[in-house]
Amino acid sequence: MARSNQRKATITGIGHYIPEHILTNADLEKLVETNDEWIRTRTGISERRIEKDPDKAAAHMGTQAAIEALNSASVDASDVDAILVATVTPDYMFPATSALIQKSLGAKGAFGFDVSAACSGFLYTLSTAAMMIESGRVDTILVIGTDKMSSIVDYTDRNTCILFGDGAGAVVLQATEEDHGFRDFIHYTDGDEDLYLVQEAGGSREPASKESVEQRKHFIRQDGRAIFKRATEGMAGVAEEIMKKNKLSAEDIAWLVPHQANSRIIEATANRMGVSMDQVMMNIDKYGNTTAATIPLCLYDWKDQLQKGDELILTAFGGGLTWGATWLTWGGAK
Amino acid sequence: MARSNQRKATITGIGHYIPEHILTNADLEKLVETNDEWIRTRTGISERRIEKDPDKAAAHMGTQAAIEALNSASVDASDVDAILVATVTPDYMFPATSALIQKSLGAKGAFGFDVSAACSGFLYTLSTAAMMIESGRVDTILVIGTDKMSSIVDYTDRNTCILFGDGAGAVVLQATEEDHGFRDFIHYTDGDEDLYLVQEAGGSREPASKESVEQRKHFIRQDGRAIFKRATEGMAGVAEEIMKKNKLSAEDIAWLVPHQANSRIIEATANRMGVSMDQVMMNIDKYGNTTAATIPLCLYDWKDQLQKGDELILTAFGGGLTWGATWLTWGGAK
Repeated sequence: MARSNQRKATITGIGHYIPEHILTNADLEKLVETNDEWIRTRTGISERRIEKDPDKAAAHMGTQAAIEALNSASVDASDVDAILVATVTPDYMFPATSALIQKSLGAKGAFGFDVSAACSGFLYTLSTAAMMIESGRVDTILVIGTDKMSSIVDYTDRNTCILFGDGAGAVVLQATEEDHGFRDFIHYTDGDEDLYLVQEAGGSREPASKESVEQRKHFIRQDGRAIFKRATEGMAGVAEEIMKKNKLSAEDIAWLVPHQANSRIIEATANRMGVSMDQVMMNIDKYGNTTAATIPLCLYDWKDQLQKGDELILTAFGGGLTWGATWLTWGGAK
Repeated sequence: MARSNQRKATITGIGHYIPEHILTNADLEKLVETNDEWIRTRTGISERRIEKDPDKAAAHMGTQAAIEALNSASVDASDVDAILVATVTPDYMFPATSALIQKSLGAKGAFGFDVSAACSGFLYTLSTAAMMIESGRVDTILVIGTDKMSSIVDYTDRNTCILFGDGAGAVVLQATEEDHGFRDFIHYTDGDEDLYLVQEAGGSREPASKESVEQRKHFIRQDGRAIFKRATEGMAGVAEEIMKKNKLSAEDIAWLVPHQANSRIIEATANRMGVSMDQVMMNIDKYGNTTAATIPLCLYDWKDQLQKGDELILTAFGGGLTWGATWLTWGGAK
C-alpha cells in the first residue's frame, strides 16, 4: 500500500567492514580446478575478502560496520531503538548476533533480533525496519547485513567457493518529516522445496552429527543452473514491476543497487529496467557475494556519488527462495 | 511511542501444533539422574511433547499451526501478506523455515523471513508484525513460533533435558479500525557475552566439525542459576514497567500470558504485577519450555476463556539475552 503525508524512514548513515585478507582467482586456481578467466567471464568476480581470525565472525564485522554508520549519522549508540541483523552466518544460533552487537555498541536502549532470509536478508530487513519507524513507535534503527560466508563455504567445491566472500554493511534508518527515504517495496518468497540453494545440516531437519560433518552437509550447496535462471527472472521481473507500479521511467532512476551474486544477473536486470550500466552499482569484482552485506556495501562504496533526491531501486534474489525490490529516495547521508 | 486514532493490528486467529509423543518425568528418570518430584517443584514441568519423526521439524509444526490459525481467522492463505517465523531450530539456516511454510500453505502473495531471538522470539516478532501493519503497508501477517527443541537438547544433560519440549503456535494478525489489538511494548536486549545460554557451535564462531560434535557443542547449554536470576528480575521488572507506563492496575488486567520457562519465574512475575495466579496462563506442566511457541500455545489453550476487550500482558525472557512485555486488548478471536 502506498502512503503519503505521513512520517517517512530515511537512511541517515552508512558503514561497512571488509576483512583485510584478499582471496584472488589465482589463489582459487591452486585449490580447485578453475581459472581466472572463467570466473571473471561467468561471474564478474576477481577477488573476495576473507576474515581469517576465527574470533572475528558476523558480530565483530557487523559491530564495525555499525560503529561507522552511527558516526556517519552522528547518532549515539544509546539513541538506537532497535538493531536488526540480516545474516545466515550468525556467530551462534543463540545468543543472537544482534544481541552481541548491542553489547559491543553499548546500545542500552535497543532491542534486537536476527533476520534469516539469505541474500534478500538486507532488503527484507530494511523494509521491516522502515515499517517499524513509519508506525510511529520507534525512531532510530540500525539495519545491519553481515555474513562470514567463508565459515560455510566448501573450498573443495569449485561451484561455490569462487562465489562468496566475507563482509558487513550497516545503515542507520531514522524517522523524518521530509520527503525522502523509503517509498515502496515488492517482496516475494517461494519455498525452495527442491533445495536448490541450501545448507543441508545443522538445523532441526538434520542436526549436526559425525555423519553430517563427514558428508560435508554444513557447507552451502547450490544448483547453479537452476538458481541462475530463477535469479535472472526474479530480479529483473521484480525491478521492472516496482517501476511500473510506481510509474517510474528509466530516466527517473539515478541508481540501481542490486544484490551482487553474478554480474550477468545484474546486467539482465539493468537491461530489463532500461537503465544503463553506468547507473548500476557493481563491486562484485572485488568482494564477490557477501550475502546480506552486498547492498549496504554498494551504498557505502557509492556514497560520495549519491545526491539528495536521487531515486534508487534496490533489488535482490537469494536462497529461500526470496527476492524483491525496494524504491527509496536518497536523503543525503554521507 | 503511544499511538491513537490510527489503525491497529489485532489477533484474528490462533492455531497450534503439539506432537503426539509424551516424554514424562518418569521417562527422564531413566535417562539421567533426576526425579519427578525435584523437576516438578523446581520447574513446574510434568511432561513435554517430542516430535519423533525426523522429517517433521520446525516447518512442519509451524505449517500445521498456521493452517489452524488461518481457519480460525477465516483467512485464505492467498490473502496473507507476510509470514514471520520465530525459531531457534529452523529446518535449515537456508532455505528459511518461513519460506518452507509459505510453500506448504500455498501463500502465493506472502514474503517471509525467520526471526532469531530465542525465547523472546514470538514476542519480538508479534511487535514487529504489528508495526508493519500499523504502517499501513500490509494488512495480514502470519506470526508463527515453532521450535523442535529436541533437535538441540542433550539427553545426557540433566540440567537442560528436563526443561524443553517441541511445539508450535501461530496467530493471524490483521489490520482493524476497531479499538482493540496491539497497544504497547517494551523490549530489552543485553548481549550475553558470558554465554549463559548458548548453542556454542554451528555458527560462524565455531562451524560444525568432528570436534564440535564430539564435544557436544551443538546442544543447548545454560548456566541455570545465572539465567534464573536474570529471568526473574527481567520478566517481573518489564511486566511491572509496562503497567506503570500505561497506568494499568492489576484490576485492569484480565490475563498474564508469560513465556513458560519455569513456574517460579512466572509466579514471581504475577506477584510483582499484583495479579493472582488464576489470571495467569500456565501450561508448562504439560509442554515444558517450547521456546518460541510458549505464548501462542497459551493463547490457544485459553482461547475459549478469552473475551473481547480483555486486557492481556504478554511477557518473555530468554537467550540473547532478550526480554520484554507487550500489552494487547483481545479482539475476540476463537
